[in-house]
Amino acid sequence: MSHTIWCNAALNERAEQMLVDGAMGHRVIFAKERLASVLKAGKSDEGIAEADVVFGQPEPAECLQRAKIKWVAVTSAGYGRYDTPEFLENFKARGSVFSTSSTVFAEPCAQHVMAMMLALGRQLLESYAEQRGDKQWKFFERRSASVLMNGQTVLLLGYGTIARRLTELLAPFGMKIYAVRRKAHSERGVFVISEERVTSVLGEADHVVNLLPDNEATRNYVNARRLAACKPGARFYNIGRGTTVDENALMQALENGKLGAAYLDVFAEEPLPSSSRLWTTRNCFITPHTAGGRSDQDVALVKHFVGNFKKFAEGETGAMDDRVV
Amino acid sequence: MSHTIWCNAALNERAEQMLVDGAMGHRVIFAKERLASVLKAGKSDEGIAEADVVFGQPEPAECLQRAKIKWVAVTSAGYGRYDTPEFLENFKARGSVFSTSSTVFAEPCAQHVMAMMLALGRQLLESYAEQRGDKQWKFFERRSASVLMNGQTVLLLGYGTIARRLTELLAPFGMKIYAVRRKAHSERGVFVISEERVTSVLGEADHVVNLLPDNEATRNYVNARRLAACKPGARFYNIGRGTTVDENALMQALENGKLGAAYLDVFAEEPLPSSSRLWTTRNCFITPHTAGGRSDQDVALVKHFVGNFKKFAEGETGAMDDRVV
Repeated sequence: MSHTIWCNAALNERAEQMLVDGAMGHRVIFAKERLASVLKAGKSDEGIAEADVVFGQPEPAECLQRAKIKWVAVTSAGYGRYDTPEFLENFKARGSVFSTSSTVFAEPCAQHVMAMMLALGRQLLESYAEQRGDKQWKFFERRSASVLMNGQTVLLLGYGTIARRLTELLAPFGMKIYAVRRKAHSERGVFVISEERVTSVLGEADHVVNLLPDNEATRNYVNARRLAACKPGARFYNIGRGTTVDENALMQALENGKLGAAYLDVFAEEPLPSSSRLWTTRNCFITPHTAGGRSDQDVALVKHFVGNFKKFAEGETGAMDDRVV
Repeated sequence: MSHTIWCNAALNERAEQMLVDGAMGHRVIFAKERLASVLKAGKSDEGIAEADVVFGQPEPAECLQRAKIKWVAVTSAGYGRYDTPEFLENFKARGSVFSTSSTVFAEPCAQHVMAMMLALGRQLLESYAEQRGDKQWKFFERRSASVLMNGQTVLLLGYGTIARRLTELLAPFGMKIYAVRRKAHSERGVFVISEERVTSVLGEADHVVNLLPDNEATRNYVNARRLAACKPGARFYNIGRGTTVDENALMQALENGKLGAAYLDVFAEEPLPSSSRLWTTRNCFITPHTAGGRSDQDVALVKHFVGNFKKFAEGETGAMDDRVV
């Protein structure tokens, strides 16, 4: 069977060539408008009408409408726009596959969380502010505020690909790691807990890492009530989605000193407007949605797609990576 | 046999009590002048005349002079002031013990290097500069400059307690790790190389981590010649001693773009004078000798000392930790 792949992901030249080579003789149509962003759904063009495989960020409505499409592979880890009963049930019913690039972004995301945790632990941002400021040598202040991770407690909100990888990176530090998910059964090195226990574990956790995706159930999950349950001085990290946090409640918890610090990569509104108070809230540190960033992103996305395409072409859809439906 | 411990380390109340308790009935004399700094040798007072055990930062000359002293335990990992043939051979000849607190500082130092590596990898400092600056959302720039550690090469200059611990923390990242030391034989997960191979391995290393102590052999070890041998864009870290680096050559390597970045915790002159050009050299990041910092330092130092004291009191000096002589 001959396949036609329509791709609207903006890829560098090397990755583009890898895609053509990896298609193993099947046809590849590049969209007229290519999307540099992994965050926005793009416009389609006539090319998509011929495709049974779509790689990039297509319009969900168009994927539903075109029954010819047998597989949509999105170039992001998050898939909020497609995560509706309408979309997923339609795909399931018609036997189409929907997959993400979750694995591609799990590694940088896990390293980003490690970087955030260690940067706060080692007072790197404070020292950098001093370097750019009055160049004081705050030897004692910085040393006595440097806290080892060993023996501390981490709570992971969400337990998917990123959390599993993060757990591996954290393993040598000898921390106590909890993770919340619906089905609670523990794995090696992690105490997996159910929703009912979250409030009590929040009271123990030195680090709360939010990895939650955006959906109906997670919106404003980190709210005033849960923040109030946190251990005083706890550090909060968000590389999930901004909508899962009540940002006003978070700012209040930072301002009143309940939280020791927050390190945020995602926001309810992105780009975070320069007028947002989050930029200047004390002990609030910001990266511009870069947790998933990797310099080899395009090549890694294509490698991931090509690996899945081989399985798809051979009818082994059950073995595909990061398959949602 | 009854021992008298003279201590000139400034300890918090809890640690002081732990020292008295841990002395198991032996006498503890606290010096009149206590040293908050682990970096400077202190003055002595008459109390030291009665001591056979010294815990803190005594004057090396005084330790040599007072033959009654059977054990000097310094509260630092580095021991440059005592690292002379005169001192060490005298102690050896008279059967006295000299030990450091190396193990206490290995953990924070290893975490500090991890923090530096990941902060550069994840562009945390650039993002923080933007947060404190014009609050631009540099999504693409930061993402494409974020480099995964996986598959990269690290060269450790020096292979002692810190390097071993760092190797454990790096293990889950799947890097190629080289370490230089005099006796070259590899260990699990590390290629230990001899001095002759350093130049060639410098050409391969994405990360060069300087852990060298200060002594005759290491002074200006990282010089213009070795910097010229580095892989273009390599990142250099120094948590060893400042004297082991030719700082002018380093600034030049940063300014001409040979090195991608340097993250320095130690300097030839400390505190680093606010007039030093290192503060403002591009891609040069500074922490004020905080790699060994840990909020529980005093307690950790006393625990370490007490553990060794038990062995010392039982005559098991061969089993003492961090013993140099």
